Amino acid sequence: MTKIPTPTVTTGPLPASTKVFYRGVLYPDLRVPMREIALHPSADAPPVTVYDCSGPYTDETAKISIERGLPRVRESWLSARGDTEVYAPRPVQPADNGFVSDDRLTPEFPARHRPLRAKAGKSISQIAYARAGIITPEMEFVAIRENLGRAEMREKLMRDGESFGAAIPDFVTPEFVRDEVARGRAVIPANINHPELEPMAIGRNFLVKINANIGNSAVTSSMAEEVEKMVRAIRWGADTVMDLSTGRNIHNIREWIIRNAPVPIGTVPIYQALEKVGGVAEDLTWEIYRDTLIEQAEQGVDYFTIHAGVRLSHIPLTVDRVTGIVSRGGSIMAKWCLHHHRESFLYEHFAEICEIMRAYDVSFSLGDGLRPGSIADANDAAQFAELETLGELTQTAWAHDCQVMIEGPGHVPMHKIKENMDKQLAVCGEAPFYTLGPLTTDIAPGYDHITSGIGAAMIGWFGTAMLCYVTPKEHLGLPDRDDVKTGVITYKIAAHAADLAKGHPAAKLRDDALSHARFEFRWEDQFNLSLDPDTARSFHDQTLPKEAHKLAHFCSMCGPKFCSMKISHDIRDAARAEAGLAEMAERYRDGGDLYMPVKDKT
Amino acid sequence: MTKIPTPTVTTGPLPASTKVFYRGVLYPDLRVPMREIALHPSADAPPVTVYDCSGPYTDETAKISIERGLPRVRESWLSARGDTEVYAPRPVQPADNGFVSDDRLTPEFPARHRPLRAKAGKSISQIAYARAGIITPEMEFVAIRENLGRAEMREKLMRDGESFGAAIPDFVTPEFVRDEVARGRAVIPANINHPELEPMAIGRNFLVKINANIGNSAVTSSMAEEVEKMVRAIRWGADTVMDLSTGRNIHNIREWIIRNAPVPIGTVPIYQALEKVGGVAEDLTWEIYRDTLIEQAEQGVDYFTIHAGVRLSHIPLTVDRVTGIVSRGGSIMAKWCLHHHRESFLYEHFAEICEIMRAYDVSFSLGDGLRPGSIADANDAAQFAELETLGELTQTAWAHDCQVMIEGPGHVPMHKIKENMDKQLAVCGEAPFYTLGPLTTDIAPGYDHITSGIGAAMIGWFGTAMLCYVTPKEHLGLPDRDDVKTGVITYKIAAHAADLAKGHPAAKLRDDALSHARFEFRWEDQFNLSLDPDTARSFHDQTLPKEAHKLAHFCSMCGPKFCSMKISHDIRDAARAEAGLAEMAERYRDGGDLYMPVKDKT
Repeated sequence: MTKIPTPTVTTGPLPASTKVFYRGVLYPDLRVPMREIALHPSADAPPVTVYDCSGPYTDETAKISIERGLPRVRESWLSARGDTEVYAPRPVQPADNGFVSDDRLTPEFPARHRPLRAKAGKSISQIAYARAGIITPEMEFVAIRENLGRAEMREKLMRDGESFGAAIPDFVTPEFVRDEVARGRAVIPANINHPELEPMAIGRNFLVKINANIGNSAVTSSMAEEVEKMVRAIRWGADTVMDLSTGRNIHNIREWIIRNAPVPIGTVPIYQALEKVGGVAEDLTWEIYRDTLIEQAEQGVDYFTIHAGVRLSHIPLTVDRVTGIVSRGGSIMAKWCLHHHRESFLYEHFAEICEIMRAYDVSFSLGDGLRPGSIADANDAAQFAELETLGELTQTAWAHDCQVMIEGPGHVPMHKIKENMDKQLAVCGEAPFYTLGPLTTDIAPGYDHITSGIGAAMIGWFGTAMLCYVTPKEHLGLPDRDDVKTGVITYKIAAHAADLAKGHPAAKLRDDALSHARFEFRWEDQFNLSLDPDTARSFHDQTLPKEAHKLAHFCSMCGPKFCSMKISHDIRDAARAEAGLAEMAERYRDGGDLYMPVKDKT
Repeated sequence: MTKIPTPTVTTGPLPASTKVFYRGVLYPDLRVPMREIALHPSADAPPVTVYDCSGPYTDETAKISIERGLPRVRESWLSARGDTEVYAPRPVQPADNGFVSDDRLTPEFPARHRPLRAKAGKSISQIAYARAGIITPEMEFVAIRENLGRAEMREKLMRDGESFGAAIPDFVTPEFVRDEVARGRAVIPANINHPELEPMAIGRNFLVKINANIGNSAVTSSMAEEVEKMVRAIRWGADTVMDLSTGRNIHNIREWIIRNAPVPIGTVPIYQALEKVGGVAEDLTWEIYRDTLIEQAEQGVDYFTIHAGVRLSHIPLTVDRVTGIVSRGGSIMAKWCLHHHRESFLYEHFAEICEIMRAYDVSFSLGDGLRPGSIADANDAAQFAELETLGELTQTAWAHDCQVMIEGPGHVPMHKIKENMDKQLAVCGEAPFYTLGPLTTDIAPGYDHITSGIGAAMIGWFGTAMLCYVTPKEHLGLPDRDDVKTGVITYKIAAHAADLAKGHPAAKLRDDALSHARFEFRWEDQFNLSLDPDTARSFHDQTLPKEAHKLAHFCSMCGPKFCSMKISHDIRDAARAEAGLAEMAERYRDGGDLYMPVKDKT
């Protein structure tokens, strides 16, 4: 076996940022991370608190060791519940890593942990606890996180938005989280075998989340690259990461990722199952798939995309599509169904799948295998037939105490986006929607982070709980770590724009802080408050590199004479000096001429 | 005077593209350019025709000489009308180039042309002709252009969209253009002193257009850079270009740009007027401003942004804003008003301004000097008070036979965007709306092409006729030519997404062509049909550089085994072989199990 060096990952805080921790009340041992961005003294304002999903990598005091993995913070929470048991894991088999030969095998993760599963007869999922009226540490963790420290500023918050029926509270309590989870309106993806996790919630009444996809393919990339992609993705704001690896070494790469991931990890188990049968879809069996679910559940995958909604009877609906079936999982299952002339084994064995998911609290992400792959195919019969099936499966999963979210399109022109959201809410009982984009046009490969960022912002506003990012490489190649960053920042924009439009009570604080900094020429604060301080700073420095320009009351766009903000300050001073000017304007807003005589008196 | 070398600009066709020309019917001499993108022979399909605003620079047969300027195609149209006269121009003065000393003076454009103006008593604007029932060559040119060659494919077109009350016809006739211009719902910016222009229309019932801003500032950039920025902007799809120069050499740089511009050029004359008074806003006078309007009208500027809506009485409404007044023109006028305690001279002299505009057919772009510069200030009293004034000024301009469009915000969260559009339509009598973005969040400097692209796509869908681009450098620095390209492509995406959602009858053809190419693994066609073929190709080649991979039935994202499209082809073949499968599905869509027995019979 080749000695593969331990990956090095990006660490250290973002500029002007400090990681702070909030303690729980129900669970005083909780340490809920938040990022505080310090402002220039001239701002005379406290630091701005923002959501932080970057994990220990941005903590100056943390010692990062990729070989050991992250601290297993949830272990004590799980053992305190006393309803899980340690057992001997399924042995790792050559097929798990794609029968890769010794010299190409990615080394196993050094530390071995024995897996947990629910004790017989116990229901250990977050939804089971929630339904039983129990607030878990995971729920309190989420509640604290979602508030962005807004307890202290409650009275300052003004609600302004259109939420299309969402019910975002002024303040998120642990009880609110419990209730949302119990109702199936939110999920907390948190496999009991992923104790390194910092819990988070995905639901329409919480902050809009984003997912970043990573993963190798048969053609390219390595374990070290994938771990670094994960770390970079969460550094810039990915709330969950999906490992979509399809090449060899899938098992071992995934282990390295999970042991070092503070965010939920999702997978599409059918990809690995297909590797195990040499890539021949028709050779897939329920037994191989089932075994793969257990393999991954034992590793700690937090949610599985399962394309159980692709039924045999749906496939003919795709025949006249412009782009057929574009979901990999969907196409694999369709091929299997058609070859065997049988109903999907995922559909037929869905109750058994639920039993496995429940034993580890793996959340369902019910895949949209028939999502449209082009504007032409948006909102068609195939897509909506599958959505109906997903609604039916949601009820089954809930009956088994499983957490569920629903995946959505794809390629959809703007005028057809809202129908997707409305139908999903109606058909799937308000289970969280998790959409890919959607892309609002097909004509811009190389820029599909943008074509889809438009659709993502809109559907996030309409109610999608998590947005799956799209990178500039979509349709063209495998994203590298820079593409991952671009995808994440673009989707943070979309998610934040959605939070603003929904009227999330704390979302606007960061916009306002940045705008104040802009108006007051606090350039450093502008950079530091932005989603990507490094890029903002480097763009500014390209034309005005000197340190003195960080204090300049102008920038290179307009130069000193033409800076509207500078002039605006002069105006403000003049206007304020004029006693009662604003009041006058109020009185005479509809008659500017009336204003003149009043002024003449001064 | 330093010898400044003649600028070199980017020329040559885009990949697989040929410039073709359509002849007029009313005016057989018209040569209306369109770009045909050839497809691979295996597509067995005719070339895809797309809108082409790139001018002769992408014509293989054209001889480009920046020193001579573009052919003056409109000269014969103008002389045929017989209602204009040549006259001796206003002499160029040292102030016109910011009193720049000899060694820093940008050389004058080598060719001198004597300006035209309307003969006394003649109304020579496009709106005046339209109202008189006359279809001009400009109008027929626009009609042909807007159809994207769709005459031949009329019966194939399916309308699908939500246009929010726009009235986009199946086929654009010259008479339709005339009627839209007569009603003020569209403008054709076409100064009679810009005979190099290829006319285009801006209106809600036409394709959504985009504008790119270029221009030097006191801090940086040169004439050669600006000419190349203009050429690059139109190469990638900018329908109009605004020269927002604020530094020295404004007059001479502008001349080089206009003489080489096949698209309308817009300016903000107050910028130059301010240079003439040494940057001291309060020293501005109506006389200096008036002289600047004439100077620029004689050069051939096609539309002027005029901030005549910033009235004295509006200014107090901005005092408590988070970001005050962020429009340069708006802040200059506000400062002037406040300093002199007087109503704006632009407002007071508006009728005189109309007379100048009419004499050259310069279109109004009524500036939104009080647009919001932050999410916090969106849709506030100052913004809407100004909009009411712009509505009033629109009526005045129309009464003078002037063409008018209205500028809009700015920074607006998604839930407040539609109100902007609806109010503008109501208040400004359906005059075309021309918006900057809007940016849907303030927190992403460095990515404001994206924060604003989201808002631009939405407001374009709602009815905005032209979208003013924002580059990644917005708020940080002056865009370079790469930023110009990124801004243009992003805004082409927004405009096209809007056309699709509005249900423009020909917009979807390009999406469908690209999606068919994608499904059929015609990689070259995918690149060539995209908005930026160079980037699409280079992204693909980063992982699969070999020529053979251009024919591969997979890409590096998923590799050969996991390509859903490849599997989808297998599925389609299998499904089609199965007689009546689709029909069966139709019958049994709600009962997949019923399908099984039928299948067993085959």
